[in-house]
Amino acid sequence: MNSTTISAISTAPGIGGIAVIRVSGIDAVKHSDAIFVPKKKIASLLHREANTVSFGSIVNKQDEVIDEVLVTIFRSPHSFTGEDIVEISCHGSLYVQQKILQLLIEQGCVLAQPGEFTQRAFLNGKMDLSQAEAVADLIASNSTASHRMALNQMRGGFSGELMKLRSQLLNFVSLIELELDFNEEDVEFADRSKLKTLATDIEQLIARLSDSFQVGNALKNGIPVAIVGETNVGKSTLLNVLLNEDKAIVSDIHGTTRDVIEDSVNYGGITFRFIDTAGIRDTKDKIENLGIERTYQKIEQASIILWIVDCTQLSEHMEWLTERIAKRAEGKKIILVFNKIDKVGEDEREVLDQLFLQFKGERIYISARERINTEGLQKALVNASQLPEIHPGDIVVNNVRHFEALQQALTAIRRVIEGLENGITGDFLSQDIRECMHYLGEITGSISNDEILGNIFGKFCIGK
Amino acid sequence: MNSTTISAISTAPGIGGIAVIRVSGIDAVKHSDAIFVPKKKIASLLHREANTVSFGSIVNKQDEVIDEVLVTIFRSPHSFTGEDIVEISCHGSLYVQQKILQLLIEQGCVLAQPGEFTQRAFLNGKMDLSQAEAVADLIASNSTASHRMALNQMRGGFSGELMKLRSQLLNFVSLIELELDFNEEDVEFADRSKLKTLATDIEQLIARLSDSFQVGNALKNGIPVAIVGETNVGKSTLLNVLLNEDKAIVSDIHGTTRDVIEDSVNYGGITFRFIDTAGIRDTKDKIENLGIERTYQKIEQASIILWIVDCTQLSEHMEWLTERIAKRAEGKKIILVFNKIDKVGEDEREVLDQLFLQFKGERIYISARERINTEGLQKALVNASQLPEIHPGDIVVNNVRHFEALQQALTAIRRVIEGLENGITGDFLSQDIRECMHYLGEITGSISNDEILGNIFGKFCIGK
Repeated sequence: MNSTTISAISTAPGIGGIAVIRVSGIDAVKHSDAIFVPKKKIASLLHREANTVSFGSIVNKQDEVIDEVLVTIFRSPHSFTGEDIVEISCHGSLYVQQKILQLLIEQGCVLAQPGEFTQRAFLNGKMDLSQAEAVADLIASNSTASHRMALNQMRGGFSGELMKLRSQLLNFVSLIELELDFNEEDVEFADRSKLKTLATDIEQLIARLSDSFQVGNALKNGIPVAIVGETNVGKSTLLNVLLNEDKAIVSDIHGTTRDVIEDSVNYGGITFRFIDTAGIRDTKDKIENLGIERTYQKIEQASIILWIVDCTQLSEHMEWLTERIAKRAEGKKIILVFNKIDKVGEDEREVLDQLFLQFKGERIYISARERINTEGLQKALVNASQLPEIHPGDIVVNNVRHFEALQQALTAIRRVIEGLENGITGDFLSQDIRECMHYLGEITGSISNDEILGNIFGKFCIGK
Repeated sequence: MNSTTISAISTAPGIGGIAVIRVSGIDAVKHSDAIFVPKKKIASLLHREANTVSFGSIVNKQDEVIDEVLVTIFRSPHSFTGEDIVEISCHGSLYVQQKILQLLIEQGCVLAQPGEFTQRAFLNGKMDLSQAEAVADLIASNSTASHRMALNQMRGGFSGELMKLRSQLLNFVSLIELELDFNEEDVEFADRSKLKTLATDIEQLIARLSDSFQVGNALKNGIPVAIVGETNVGKSTLLNVLLNEDKAIVSDIHGTTRDVIEDSVNYGGITFRFIDTAGIRDTKDKIENLGIERTYQKIEQASIILWIVDCTQLSEHMEWLTERIAKRAEGKKIILVFNKIDKVGEDEREVLDQLFLQFKGERIYISARERINTEGLQKALVNASQLPEIHPGDIVVNNVRHFEALQQALTAIRRVIEGLENGITGDFLSQDIRECMHYLGEITGSISNDEILGNIFGKFCIGK
């Protein structure tokens, strides 16, 4: 167990009604007690029972009262970090928060690194690595789906299953390695057919988890939507309208696991990440063609294409465009959006429909500026996303690190199955099983190193 | 006691490691218990002891887990509001915070109004009105001085004294009013000389408190500093330099008792509020003269004048200017600031000094752009502020409402003293004493009405 006692402000930065300063480590109670004067002359914090709250004052060395606070004590090992924890709930003034933190540091506390409380929880065996990662995901969650994924993972959703598989593999590999010791006697302790059944089960489970990453990643990072069309058809106006609806919750994310997500928005629990593009047109200008080439690349990165057409200005090369976009967007959802619909009559609308007879996908009529049917467009996006709903308890991988480890584990377990079919020797078999175990262990943190931990916890906010 | 149960997010808005949702009212425990599943199958929240913490999950009606939380219970009357309080400490995700609040509201909680928790504390007799106001001041405090003032007031600093005086006055006024009942018998129950001693003591105390407002107001709202000078002498550059040093803590104030304070900065625990002004010059242009007139008005509003002179461009009407500014700034601290000092040599500096022989105040040589000696200017400002240091326990009035009530009480108590000297009749005396008592009561909230309360608590943040 770590010998330092850490402290940090754990609530959101800024001024609030109250703020919470958290202290964790062997001297958490001692250091807090040194700056705390209980209201009632009850026993000092040192003798307070675990999971109780005391009212009193925080005082500095000159006995000047800094604030009146509530102090909650948790005792090792029954705490978030597994260490003694003290939570000081003070008035939410920036000045008071800083002052109390300063007093704790004067007593000997160390300012906590980002994610250090959760890292200690992991190191003290209170949770495995994938659960620790889910804590950050939970804090960053901004939709029903991302919240459910994070919570399922934090509550041990898939790491429990991985650990079980891993220990079954360990059983077999031990038997196989025992065989190797009796090499010359040609014994077979490990039942090859049972091993094959297990390996096949494991392969299927890993493949299922690994496949879920596509959905998990889209839910976590948003579904990329490219907005394409000719110049001046109203792409930027539409983008603004789409973004204005529900921006607050997304734009507020900072200091958490991900960088600030701009131009993302949440409809029906699904996050869409909009990609604005340069207008496409038929031109000989080399520079402009470079820009258009980039638009095509963005189309390829997107899952959904919003193809915007200005009803009032149908260009003569609509057919040419239709072809170009369709070619680049193969296999993707295209929604044809007729913009400025308020400016045209019924007749013109029929002409429009005729013009795009070739186009088989969904079409929708809106006015971005007048906000006509933009809600319909949002619904069309939700339908086009084709994401399965995440139910409480569903296990979905949404972490690139886990996905990569699963891919490696999958390759290894497939080699095991292949090896069993080809009757390879125990030493090769053992090596492949060990490799699979290694990658499963990386996910839960049974196998970890400082670099991995630094990468993971460095992205947390301070105070968690 | 109020029949509704209120709830709000009490920590700063945004994402943090943890967030706290507060519930207060007769059904606080019941409503929280309805959405809480304890980890250990211990008694439900309904039977948990006061001041204890329980670990468990918040679940919705479909039994889906929303978050793993810590729930602290406080029981009436031993809580901040005097009612039952439940504090739910959850993961600091915006989604989770909103979701839990939503579940509480589904159970029957009402979203708390700004300051409603503190208002309930006042209405339930947990604190008087001046203490409640100090809670908001404490949250907004951003310097040692403003913090000490708020804390002293919150801990009952001067309301206790006022209440004592008020009850002594009540004693006398009762005796005087008793005399009136025995009107014809010409009795004197109330000892006039003792009353005069008391009234004089009270007059002195109120005068002292009232006088302290000048300091208190400067400390709370900042000392107004006008930056004046001719056009293009570097006023705006200097303002930016002065503001850039320590802006963070000031600019972060929002949603608290005061509006966003712009262009304020904190040096040595004192807040300075800078006022930029239009350049002064001798002109016949009517419009321009209007602007210059506004500059003079700003000089009159300020406590300190920073008079900026460009070393490289001494105008011919320096003497004229000196006279004009000095006339408007009478009784105020003027600091003569020679800017762009890096552009001139020793000789020119001597010429400068000669030019301003008339000027008897402090002078300082800086370069705003090159940041030469700007620290010296900050120190000069701190010295010029001439504010006494606030010590722990010092009673300083910093609230306009209190100041106005004190002024009224002072007028009334002076009429009492005068009346005693002139031997006025008991009924007039009684009326003046009652008036003094009324204004003292307004401060502590013994006398209050919905409008006053609405004004006070409406400026709080939600969740406090």
